Amino acid sequence: MTDTEIANDAEIATDETATLIASNKVEGTAVYNDDGEKLGSIYNFMVDKVSGQAEYAVLQFGGIFGIGSDYYPLPWDMLTYDTERGGYVVDIDKETLEGAPRYAADAQPAYDEAYGERVYGYYGLNYN
Amino acid sequence: MTDTEIANDAEIATDETATLIASNKVEGTAVYNDDGEKLGSIYNFMVDKVSGQAEYAVLQFGGIFGIGSDYYPLPWDMLTYDTERGGYVVDIDKETLEGAPRYAADAQPAYDEAYGERVYGYYGLNYN
Repeated sequence: MTDTEIANDAEIATDETATLIASNKVEGTAVYNDDGEKLGSIYNFMVDKVSGQAEYAVLQFGGIFGIGSDYYPLPWDMLTYDTERGGYVVDIDKETLEGAPRYAADAQPAYDEAYGERVYGYYGLNYN
Repeated sequence: MTDTEIANDAEIATDETATLIASNKVEGTAVYNDDGEKLGSIYNFMVDKVSGQAEYAVLQFGGIFGIGSDYYPLPWDMLTYDTERGGYVVDIDKETLEGAPRYAADAQPAYDEAYGERVYGYYGLNYN
């Protein structure tokens, strides 16, 4: 291992461990599909206040410098982290994403049970 | 309910629901103890990459404008959200916090099993 590699490892260790990742590191991370196309980046993620369970990662996509972006809630389990790419990978093609549930910055939905069923259902998953 | 109260409710609904909260809303939220003393604010929280389970909320405390602050990992379950205060409440007195596991900004620990046992153990909780 070279000095550079050691330095990089040390840097990674400051906000990421084998199993845990810092919330503010998730935010801003790039998201790719299986074909390596960049879909957007993680804006934030929605967590159950009591249990601490993350239910959605919110993909920000489109717009310029965040203006006019759309926000796509993705079931958390759909994301896998690709250490080589330094980003998340999801198995969604661009066509699927184009028809997916989304909202504008000023119109975040209630994230209730009905919305959960709609979003998870769109991706063929069960909510709860 | 007055118009102002309705407007405030609508505002809250944009990044918080009955059960879910946005990750970037957790960050920066004030933390109080049971006596109403402000202990600090949430810097970030540590989430299991695969399961999406939040394990720690990291309390930032001391220093000026973030310089010289210490970071105190708290077991996620210790936090309850107080809607009246608009912040989290934890049952920790200042003396307990002074002896608690902490780290400087440039010295984040590995957040491994041993660290989990140390932090959770300090607060009388079991890790895992």
